[in-house]
Amino acid sequence: RALSLRVRAAVVIEKETPENERPETFLRRSDELGSAAASPNLVRARFERMIMAVQDDVCAAIEAEDGEGKFQEDVWSRPGGGGGISRVLQDGGVWEKAGVNVSVVYGMMPPDAYRAAKGGPPSEKPGPVPFFAAGISSVLHPKNPFSPTLHFNYRYFETDAPKDSPGAPREWWFGGGTDLTPAYIFEEDVKHFHQIQKKACDKFDPSFYPRFKKWCDDYFLIKHRGERRGLGGIFFDDLNDYDQEMLLSFVTECAKSVVPAYIPIISRTKDRPFTDQHKAWQQLRRGRYVEFNLVYDRGTTFGLKTGGRIESILVSLPLTARWEYDHQPEEGSEEWKLLDACINPKEWI
Amino acid sequence: RALSLRVRAAVVIEKETPENERPETFLRRSDELGSAAASPNLVRARFERMIMAVQDDVCAAIEAEDGEGKFQEDVWSRPGGGGGISRVLQDGGVWEKAGVNVSVVYGMMPPDAYRAAKGGPPSEKPGPVPFFAAGISSVLHPKNPFSPTLHFNYRYFETDAPKDSPGAPREWWFGGGTDLTPAYIFEEDVKHFHQIQKKACDKFDPSFYPRFKKWCDDYFLIKHRGERRGLGGIFFDDLNDYDQEMLLSFVTECAKSVVPAYIPIISRTKDRPFTDQHKAWQQLRRGRYVEFNLVYDRGTTFGLKTGGRIESILVSLPLTARWEYDHQPEEGSEEWKLLDACINPKEWI
Repeated sequence: RALSLRVRAAVVIEKETPENERPETFLRRSDELGSAAASPNLVRARFERMIMAVQDDVCAAIEAEDGEGKFQEDVWSRPGGGGGISRVLQDGGVWEKAGVNVSVVYGMMPPDAYRAAKGGPPSEKPGPVPFFAAGISSVLHPKNPFSPTLHFNYRYFETDAPKDSPGAPREWWFGGGTDLTPAYIFEEDVKHFHQIQKKACDKFDPSFYPRFKKWCDDYFLIKHRGERRGLGGIFFDDLNDYDQEMLLSFVTECAKSVVPAYIPIISRTKDRPFTDQHKAWQQLRRGRYVEFNLVYDRGTTFGLKTGGRIESILVSLPLTARWEYDHQPEEGSEEWKLLDACINPKEWI
Repeated sequence: RALSLRVRAAVVIEKETPENERPETFLRRSDELGSAAASPNLVRARFERMIMAVQDDVCAAIEAEDGEGKFQEDVWSRPGGGGGISRVLQDGGVWEKAGVNVSVVYGMMPPDAYRAAKGGPPSEKPGPVPFFAAGISSVLHPKNPFSPTLHFNYRYFETDAPKDSPGAPREWWFGGGTDLTPAYIFEEDVKHFHQIQKKACDKFDPSFYPRFKKWCDDYFLIKHRGERRGLGGIFFDDLNDYDQEMLLSFVTECAKSVVPAYIPIISRTKDRPFTDQHKAWQQLRRGRYVEFNLVYDRGTTFGLKTGGRIESILVSLPLTARWEYDHQPEEGSEEWKLLDACINPKEWI
């Protein structure tokens, strides 16, 4: 955990520049990472291709399901290395705000950050450490209060041997997850969603789903309220204690499961009639989403504190949100059932 | 700064209990603070009377100006000492959400917290230190996008000598401020507001207004955006380098200036016709308010992390807020002028 946060902190120091064209790859043939940095067979290159393909697929599925909205694209780069592609659909037919961002950044990690992250003795003085960080991150907020919000994020980090200590170990790890945040529970939909997550996990290790499901319930806790922002899914970080190829296949499988896990739920719910009361409850739950993201979410809080691209980071916030003083849903109501499931996480399958 | 935060952290460890009746005072005749704790002449007792009177006055002025809404009152107490009165008006004729809270808490501060706050050597082992903290805190969000949000907060802290070291120094300090957050600038209104702050300050020290105006501009900065949440006012903390009586009179004057500084602005703006565009811009600025409060405001973030009464803390959030991706007001527009004044603080008088 500490290591990935340090790397992210080091990553986002520089300001981004807008670009007019979308590159094939953000990797360079020759840079601090060495001449093989852009070799198409390296995990970093394959991971970059994967997240760009998933960005295309998710955006295409969203546009098809939405019927009206189109994604607008912002491409940016960093002088030190890498860049990103932010895509946002706003005020569509089905989604009020949908953001799907890809970023690929690399460069030199300050020695202090590396030492602090690795916990090595202060006497060792490594030179700057080359790092690489890439990820896809997305939050999809629909309009209909019966249609759930979806979040997913998959990322890959690498640090190389410092230039002046060629024997130093090379580090890599994966992180990510997919989670569902409805305002109302449709049990078959929540089961469907969790089943797809479990299926993706089970292909690789039977321990993954139960472990990452619990990790997700723990991570998305709004501590000051003692409730989660939604009904969970899977979450993991700093994953490197398995074969690297296996983990690349695993996160690829997870990312490719987003469309089949989510779009059928939207198809079933997007045209359901609703009242002002349903909408107001959705808006209150959106307020909780804002509380989690601004107060606890590590990507968001670190991004804000270290000068990341603000509009890309905060695209996760809903278009609108609401806070009523001391709102308590009536016991036994549909609103109460959702709240109960956020306070006491359930096993859905 | 560190000291007041530590004290606040120590203050809010216990859970509150709802009370049916509002007490005359939250002070007790005989407690850890010594038999004279509730003497009506002590600064703590006079400060408590002042904030309760200001709560009454502000709520009465709001209800009169609002015409429709009424405050609902929640009284709570803490087993360890003290309690609070939360008053909230929701969905009135003029205000969509108005909270005016008073709290008076005291008890024993853990020795570790005291040592960390005072920065003394770890070898000194003081016993638990009696502390006292009282304050009034208020955020008033009107409906009309031409009517500004107001925030004010005045607070007083004391620590007593530890029981086992009667010679140890007794500490006290004042903090607080009043600031204005419009979505549109009416220059005469902003001038009026700042003039009243300056008048309150100038009665006591000519250096106060310029110093506390700048402190306010610095404090309410949304760092990740490089813009303030509004047009400032006055702000100060850890104030104890003046005569205690003088500072009690000063914060009393500031708190009593809230009604004359704010209500005339509401009278002038509350019935102005507005469009959906005006409303959407107000909602975007409300989003900035949420960002500041959840990410940076010390009272809010400390309250959330240390288990304060959540509904009292988060009553500062607006009823509704909005986040649009990459919204940029047109240069020269009224929206742009407000944003410019939030990025480049102005001298209003």
